[in-house]
Amino acid sequence: MRKAFAYAAVVGLCGSVQAQSSVTIFGGVDVAYQHLSVSDSGSLNRMINGGSLTSRLGVRGVEDLGGGYAAGFWMEAGLNGDNGTGSASNANNQTIGAATPGLAGAQGITFNRRSTVSLFTPAGEFRLGRTENPLFWNQTTFDPFRTQGSGASINITTGAGLGTTAGLGQPTAGRISNSFTYLLPPKLGGVYGQITLGRGENSPTPAALKNDGNYAGARLGYEARGMHVALALTHTVYSTGNLNGVNLGASYNLGFATVMGQVARDERTGAASTRANYWLVGALVPAGPGTFRVSFGKTDVANTPNDATLAAIGYIYPFSKRTSAYTALARIDNKGTGRGFHQGLAVTAPGGKSTGFDIGIRHDF
Amino acid sequence: MRKAFAYAAVVGLCGSVQAQSSVTIFGGVDVAYQHLSVSDSGSLNRMINGGSLTSRLGVRGVEDLGGGYAAGFWMEAGLNGDNGTGSASNANNQTIGAATPGLAGAQGITFNRRSTVSLFTPAGEFRLGRTENPLFWNQTTFDPFRTQGSGASINITTGAGLGTTAGLGQPTAGRISNSFTYLLPPKLGGVYGQITLGRGENSPTPAALKNDGNYAGARLGYEARGMHVALALTHTVYSTGNLNGVNLGASYNLGFATVMGQVARDERTGAASTRANYWLVGALVPAGPGTFRVSFGKTDVANTPNDATLAAIGYIYPFSKRTSAYTALARIDNKGTGRGFHQGLAVTAPGGKSTGFDIGIRHDF
Amino acid sequence: MRKAFAYAAVVGLCGSVQAQSSVTIFGGVDVAYQHLSVSDSGSLNRMINGGSLTSRLGVRGVEDLGGGYAAGFWMEAGLNGDNGTGSASNANNQTIGAATPGLAGAQGITFNRRSTVSLFTPAGEFRLGRTENPLFWNQTTFDPFRTQGSGASINITTGAGLGTTAGLGQPTAGRISNSFTYLLPPKLGGVYGQITLGRGENSPTPAALKNDGNYAGARLGYEARGMHVALALTHTVYSTGNLNGVNLGASYNLGFATVMGQVARDERTGAASTRANYWLVGALVPAGPGTFRVSFGKTDVANTPNDATLAAIGYIYPFSKRTSAYTALARIDNKGTGRGFHQGLAVTAPGGKSTGFDIGIRHDF
Repeated sequence: MRKAFAYAAVVGLCGSVQAQSSVTIFGGVDVAYQHLSVSDSGSLNRMINGGSLTSRLGVRGVEDLGGGYAAGFWMEAGLNGDNGTGSASNANNQTIGAATPGLAGAQGITFNRRSTVSLFTPAGEFRLGRTENPLFWNQTTFDPFRTQGSGASINITTGAGLGTTAGLGQPTAGRISNSFTYLLPPKLGGVYGQITLGRGENSPTPAALKNDGNYAGARLGYEARGMHVALALTHTVYSTGNLNGVNLGASYNLGFATVMGQVARDERTGAASTRANYWLVGALVPAGPGTFRVSFGKTDVANTPNDATLAAIGYIYPFSKRTSAYTALARIDNKGTGRGFHQGLAVTAPGGKSTGFDIGIRHDF
Repeated sequence: MRKAFAYAAVVGLCGSVQAQSSVTIFGGVDVAYQHLSVSDSGSLNRMINGGSLTSRLGVRGVEDLGGGYAAGFWMEAGLNGDNGTGSASNANNQTIGAATPGLAGAQGITFNRRSTVSLFTPAGEFRLGRTENPLFWNQTTFDPFRTQGSGASINITTGAGLGTTAGLGQPTAGRISNSFTYLLPPKLGGVYGQITLGRGENSPTPAALKNDGNYAGARLGYEARGMHVALALTHTVYSTGNLNGVNLGASYNLGFATVMGQVARDERTGAASTRANYWLVGALVPAGPGTFRVSFGKTDVANTPNDATLAAIGYIYPFSKRTSAYTALARIDNKGTGRGFHQGLAVTAPGGKSTGFDIGIRHDF
Repeated sequence: MRKAFAYAAVVGLCGSVQAQSSVTIFGGVDVAYQHLSVSDSGSLNRMINGGSLTSRLGVRGVEDLGGGYAAGFWMEAGLNGDNGTGSASNANNQTIGAATPGLAGAQGITFNRRSTVSLFTPAGEFRLGRTENPLFWNQTTFDPFRTQGSGASINITTGAGLGTTAGLGQPTAGRISNSFTYLLPPKLGGVYGQITLGRGENSPTPAALKNDGNYAGARLGYEARGMHVALALTHTVYSTGNLNGVNLGASYNLGFATVMGQVARDERTGAASTRANYWLVGALVPAGPGTFRVSFGKTDVANTPNDATLAAIGYIYPFSKRTSAYTALARIDNKGTGRGFHQGLAVTAPGGKSTGFDIGIRHDF
C-alpha cells in the first residue's frame, strides 16, 4: 500500500550498494461527493476531502544502526484533495499558534500530521517533534468511520457547540507540537503504550501565560487474538482553564464482525469550567466483497443544551488493497435548544437534524 | 522527460517484487531574465518564473486494477522558480476562496495545478478534485507561446483591463476546485472530450449566494494525422453576473511548420454585463536545431477602450529532450484610451505600448 | 547521507534503461530540547528546530548533456521539525517581500533555501533563481556551530540589537531571490568562486524605490591540503541606506583539531548609517567517537551600546554517518546598556547574560 523507493529492495534484488537506508514516499488521495440536508437551513451538495481517510502526502525513512538500534524520520502533510491546499499546523499548542483565519485557498502544505525524528532502541522509541495526540488516536481507532466523513463521531464532539465549550476543540486536540514522546518497544505480548510531553514555548514573562500550551498525554493498550483495548489521557495547561480528556475504547473480532465502542470525557477546569461525555458503539461487518460500517453515538454537554446522537451506516467496496469506493449515510439528531451539531457548512436549527450522504473514492500509495 | 521511481522498471530488470504500482515524481524548473520597456513608465529588468513552462513539482501514480480498470492520483504544485514560493489554490471557485493578498514570499506550496483521484474504466475516466478548466487548456494548446512569458496571448486577455471587466480573470479561469470530471476513453480515433462540474460549496443561506462558484465546462477535440481542433466551453455562476467563455482552436502540421489559431469570447451576464473577443494566429517553425515561435493576436473588449494587439517571436534551443534555452520578443500595442495591457509589473500609459524580451532556461524532470 | 532514487545506480547494477538522469530526494530532520536562562527574565524550556542543521526537504537532479555540459535543478525547503511548518521565502529581496507576520502554524513549505535551474559548462555553472548569499555561506562555514543552536555566532549578529541597526538583519542576509549566479568550474587546484546578482523587481515608478532590493555579492576561496580560506562580499541597494557586508574566514586542519576563525563587518550607508564588526575563533576537536566544538566570538556595534561576546562548547556523537546526537552550552554576555543579544524567545536585561543548553538528534537522508 505504501512503497519505498527502496534502495534496500533494489539492492536485495540486484546488487551490493549500501543497503542501510531507504526513503519512502507515501500517502493517499480521498475525495467524496457529499449531500447535506439540514433542518431549517436547506440542502447542500459539495465535494469533501477524505470521506474515508484524510488525504495526505508524506516522506519517511529508517536507518538501521545495528544492535537493535535505529534512527528514523517521518514528515506527513495533510492535504485537501478537493482543492489542492494543505492544512495548517500549530506552532505552540495554543490558539495563537494556529492558522490565520481565512487563508482558504492560500494555505500551503505543512507537515501538520507528523514531523518527527526518532531514535529506536531495545527499550523503546524516543521521538522529537510534532506527533499525534494519544486521545485523538483512540477516538479514531474505535470508531468504524474513524474521524472522517458524515458518519464520524467527531461530528458530535467538535461541532458548533462542543468545540468552543469543552476540550476537543483545543489546539492540541489532534497533534502536539514541540513534543517529546516515549513509546514502549513492540513485541511486548500485545501491550503497547506511549507518553507525550509538549511545550507551549512562551516567554517567561508574563508569568501567568508562561505555561500555556504545555501538554502531557499518554496511551496504554493491548491488542492480541482479535481483542483490542486502549485507554488514553490528555492534559493541556491554559491560564483560561486546563483542558483534560480521557477515552477508553475497545474492539473485538467475532469472526462475522468486529464490534467496537468507546466512552470518553472532556473537561475544562477553572472559572468557566464545563465538561462533555460521549460514547459510541459500532461494528465493521464483512459482506460480499466489502465491509459494512455501522455506529451509534451520543454526546452530553454539561451546562448547555447541546446533547446530540449520531447514527451512521456505510459500505466500503475495495477495488484493490490500495483503492476503494465507499459510501456513508448518517443522521445527527440534536436534542437541546442550543446551536446544534452538524456535518458541514450548513448550521442546523436549535434541536434540529442534520443528514449527510457521502460517496467517494480513496486511493492510497 | 518524466521519470518513475519505477518499481516496475526496476522489477522488470531485476526481479519479482509486486509490480502493480508506481509513484512518479515529476516537474520542471524554468527561470528567465526579462527586460520590459513600457510607454510613459520606463524599463524594468527582472527574473521571471516559467518563460516557457510554469515551474512545477508533482507526484502521481497509477494502479492497474485489471480488466481495463485502473485507479490513479495526481498532485501537482505550481512553483515560482525565481524565488522558491508556491502558488495559492482557490478553495471555492470564488474570489473569497483565493489567496490573502500580499502573502508574497510567505506563499507556501499548494497542489494548485491539479489535485485529483481517478478511476479509469473502459468507458472513460472519472476524476474527483481540482483540475484544469477546459477553456484554459484550449488557450494554452493553440498558442505557440502557450500561456507563458512575454509572448503569451494571456497577456492581452487577463491584463489590467480584461481581467476585471470580463471572464478570464475569474477565479475559475485556470482550474476548478471541488469538481467532478468525466473524460472520454483514449483510442477513439483521435476524438477526445471531457465534462467538468464544480461546486462553490456555499451555505444554503443566504440563498442569493448559494450557487456562487458553481461551474460547468466541457471540451471536445479531434487530433490525428497532424490535424488538431478543439472547442471548449466554460460557465461559472456568480450572483454578480455569470461568467461564460467559449474557445475554438486548431492547428495543422504542414511539415515545414505547424500553424495554429484560436478565436474566443468571454462574457459576463447580468446588470454589469460585458464581453471580450480575442483571436490569434501563430506558428511553430523548426529551424536548425530548434524551433521558431511566432504569433499575432488581438483583443476587443466591449464597453471599454481596452483593445490591444500582441505580436511575438521567439526561439527554443533544445540541449536535450528535457532541457532547453529559449528567448521571446513581444510587443503589446494598446489601441484604446483606458488602462493598457502589459506584460508585467510596469503599467502602460493609456494607448501605450509594452515590449518584453525574455531569455531563459527550462529543465524538466 | 543523501540518496538518489537513482536510475543510474539501479541501471549500473541491473540493466540498460536510459541512464541519463536522476532525481534525488534529500534532507534531514533535526530537533533539540533547549533550556534557556536569561538575566532578569527567568528560564524557558522548549524544543527547537535544527540545533545542529536546519531541518530541510529537497528535490534535485542533474542531466548529463555530454561534452562537459550538464543541466540541473535544486529545490530545497527549510522545515521547522518541531512543529511541521515550513519557512517563508522572500519574493523581492525587500522587507515587503517577506512573510506576513504572525503566520505561525499556518506557514506552508516554500523552497526558501534554494530554488534554481543550472547550466553546467566547462567554463563554470550558470544558475538562475533563489540561492544562498555568499556571505552567509562564509559565516556558516567558519563557525564550529555553523548558524544553528545556542552556540552559533549568528545569535550575536542578528539578535535584538544588530538585526535592526545593521546589515545582517536584511532581507538578503540568507538568500537572494530573482538572481543570476556564475560559479567557477571545480578542479581549479582548490580555488572556487562565485558572483551573484539579484533583482528587487520594483516598478520603474516611483524612481526613488526602483532599485530597492537589487543585489550584488561574491565569494572567492581556496581549499586544499587541510587549509581553507574564503572572502565574501555582499551589497544590497535600499533607498533607506544600502547594506554592505564583508566576511573573511579561514580554517586549518592540524590533525588533532581543525581551528577556524572569521572577521566580518556589516554597514548601512546613508543618513542613518551604522556599522557592526564581529569576529570569532573556534575549533573542532575529535575526541573519542565524536567531536568537540568550541568557539568564542565578539560583536561591536557602532553608535549603540550593543556589544556582546559569545562563548560556546559542544559535542557531537555520531551514531552513523547520517545520524548523530549533539549537545551545546553557550553563554552570551552583553556589554552595553541597550537591549541585549540572546538565544531565543526570552529577552535579556540591558547588559545582561543569556545561557542556552541544547541536546538534540539529527538524522539526514
